[in-house]
Amino acid sequence: MSHFKPAAPFETETGDPILLTPGPLTTSRSVKAAMLHDWGSRDANFVATNKAVLAQLCEIANGGEDFVTVPMQGSGTFAVEAMLTSLVPRKGKVLVLVNGAYGLRAKRILDIAARKTVVHQTAEDAPPDLKKIEAILKRTPSITHIFAVHCETTSGILNPVEEIGALAAKYGKGYLIDSMSAFGALPLDARAVHADAVAASSNKCIEGVPGLGFVICRRDVLAASQGNATTLVLDLHDQWSNFGKTGQYRFTPPTHVIVALHQALREFAAEGGVSGRGGRYRENCRILLDGMTALGFRPLLPEALQAPIIVTFHMLDDPRFDFQRFYDGLKERGFVIYPGKLTVADSFRMGCIGRIGEREMRGALDAVREMLEVMGVEAVPAQA
Amino acid sequence: MSHFKPAAPFETETGDPILLTPGPLTTSRSVKAAMLHDWGSRDANFVATNKAVLAQLCEIANGGEDFVTVPMQGSGTFAVEAMLTSLVPRKGKVLVLVNGAYGLRAKRILDIAARKTVVHQTAEDAPPDLKKIEAILKRTPSITHIFAVHCETTSGILNPVEEIGALAAKYGKGYLIDSMSAFGALPLDARAVHADAVAASSNKCIEGVPGLGFVICRRDVLAASQGNATTLVLDLHDQWSNFGKTGQYRFTPPTHVIVALHQALREFAAEGGVSGRGGRYRENCRILLDGMTALGFRPLLPEALQAPIIVTFHMLDDPRFDFQRFYDGLKERGFVIYPGKLTVADSFRMGCIGRIGEREMRGALDAVREMLEVMGVEAVPAQA
Repeated sequence: MSHFKPAAPFETETGDPILLTPGPLTTSRSVKAAMLHDWGSRDANFVATNKAVLAQLCEIANGGEDFVTVPMQGSGTFAVEAMLTSLVPRKGKVLVLVNGAYGLRAKRILDIAARKTVVHQTAEDAPPDLKKIEAILKRTPSITHIFAVHCETTSGILNPVEEIGALAAKYGKGYLIDSMSAFGALPLDARAVHADAVAASSNKCIEGVPGLGFVICRRDVLAASQGNATTLVLDLHDQWSNFGKTGQYRFTPPTHVIVALHQALREFAAEGGVSGRGGRYRENCRILLDGMTALGFRPLLPEALQAPIIVTFHMLDDPRFDFQRFYDGLKERGFVIYPGKLTVADSFRMGCIGRIGEREMRGALDAVREMLEVMGVEAVPAQA
Repeated sequence: MSHFKPAAPFETETGDPILLTPGPLTTSRSVKAAMLHDWGSRDANFVATNKAVLAQLCEIANGGEDFVTVPMQGSGTFAVEAMLTSLVPRKGKVLVLVNGAYGLRAKRILDIAARKTVVHQTAEDAPPDLKKIEAILKRTPSITHIFAVHCETTSGILNPVEEIGALAAKYGKGYLIDSMSAFGALPLDARAVHADAVAASSNKCIEGVPGLGFVICRRDVLAASQGNATTLVLDLHDQWSNFGKTGQYRFTPPTHVIVALHQALREFAAEGGVSGRGGRYRENCRILLDGMTALGFRPLLPEALQAPIIVTFHMLDDPRFDFQRFYDGLKERGFVIYPGKLTVADSFRMGCIGRIGEREMRGALDAVREMLEVMGVEAVPAQA
């Protein structure tokens, strides 16, 4: 059966493969079409568009008047580094909760910036231990901040940001959240979780294109952060105060990316905001999990820990299953999946996010089924 | 005549006004249309496109095998900060040549990063004094690097990067060039000028869209720079070594911006590279200078110092000349100009770069003439 070729790849609006990855994602044609114009970055029309974008992002986090969005050119990690180095004072100490690559990355950023850290690390398939966090906070009063990852894309695990926030509030600690891959799909009320700041980016669940990160900051925390930053470009306070003065970016913004984000936010609102967007992703995730399990694949995480963002599957334990061939065959059929990032198990990942729905998820499952046939792997439904 | 309205704004392919600014610029329809697709950032096709982009940028600087392009998400200033903080060791000392806002910005970046500096500052309409530079280098042997701005966009002045490079070579100093607004339009041979690194961005004379900066680095200098950086995201060595390992970005790249840059580089080559692109800009600049002078405007700079990138004009000394009205009227007629940034004189700026030629420059002059009529300002040709 190795000569088996798809009659035609999965049909899409643009002819591009569907991106079943944690981002950049498949975006709508209309989001991309917003980039068919050039904008002057200091012109009133662009300034107004950008202002609307920042206000809408703050609303998604229910920030009200207490919070303000500070954008950061670059990517999500640029926003996370800006958040950590601008909001943690030079003498601060951060409790970093690690259960994957993004927690480790925050620790690395803090090390480079010479901020002290305490690490609470759990396995990639285990959430942080709230009791242990509380014990650490009790015995280490010098801790000034807690850093958590909302959905750790390494595995797809959902971390308990509300419960961690309650501990931050109880012990009077600052609370910094990397909500990169969850923002817009999972509810996050910045005030209710006692966050100081939430970092995310244009190209995840908001379904814009990559090129802009942002940090939704508590105004009083931001106002008190002057002088903390260790760089010019990543200084959130300086970026924010310049918007206050001129409404403009200090340095050239990615104008096309921002007008695409403006369009993406329109489509986000039209879908019903977080509940509509999250509902579609949960449905995508259910179809994927049901279908893949029926084909013999075993997800890493139990349902209770699985965020509807990206699913990690174990490789099939069958000598005929060849991941590179599987990946290439899926791509040929119009679906790009994602290699694993786990240290604990040999795995791959498939995303549930982006401008995709039931048709795309079922198409992906058809392609997976075909590739198992091509490789001569018999589909044996995994045991629950 | 104040009721005078344009019959119709200047006609363009996209209906957008022409951007007579230092960037973001007017780009071609085909460059923007390259963004109508989504790309997986770790997918082989995107990795190959990005590799081709980096190689072509290095060729434009005649870098050969001695140089390599390290891209930096964000903007040009992100690339400049990455260059300064990655290539100047923590104990380095930089002679910063300042004759405008971008030289001052480099000084600020170095201050924040706690790198020592010596400043040689000249007026905004005066190039650095080569004799004084040599005297500084003689009496301050602790200087490790010289930083210069190729075309200082504050005024539009062309700085003598070759002569400065000869001094850097003579005294054995590292040499870092911000060629942001000149790269691709003015010849710059990285080896011939003895540069360690040249920083520029996607959205200036290469005529891509904003969102990516890059630093063309001497390989041996880059290889020796490990551990210098003060951040994770702006670490050029780390960014470079990851490309060596995987061909991929460490953090999500602005995929759409990069495929647009790929298309822009194709159009750059088709126009005849630096000589073709620079030739068109010189012609734009000549038309602009002749036309504006005939209308009574006086350029800041003498011809010998004027780069064909952006021209600073003094405001008209006429009580009926109202800059805001002039700006708004030009915009209504389809042309966005740029306020001045000078500290020495009241001025405004008009760019010569981007996907514009004789038709656009003459259209802009027509609009300027109309606005003078609207405001009742009599055009009196400026004295040479």
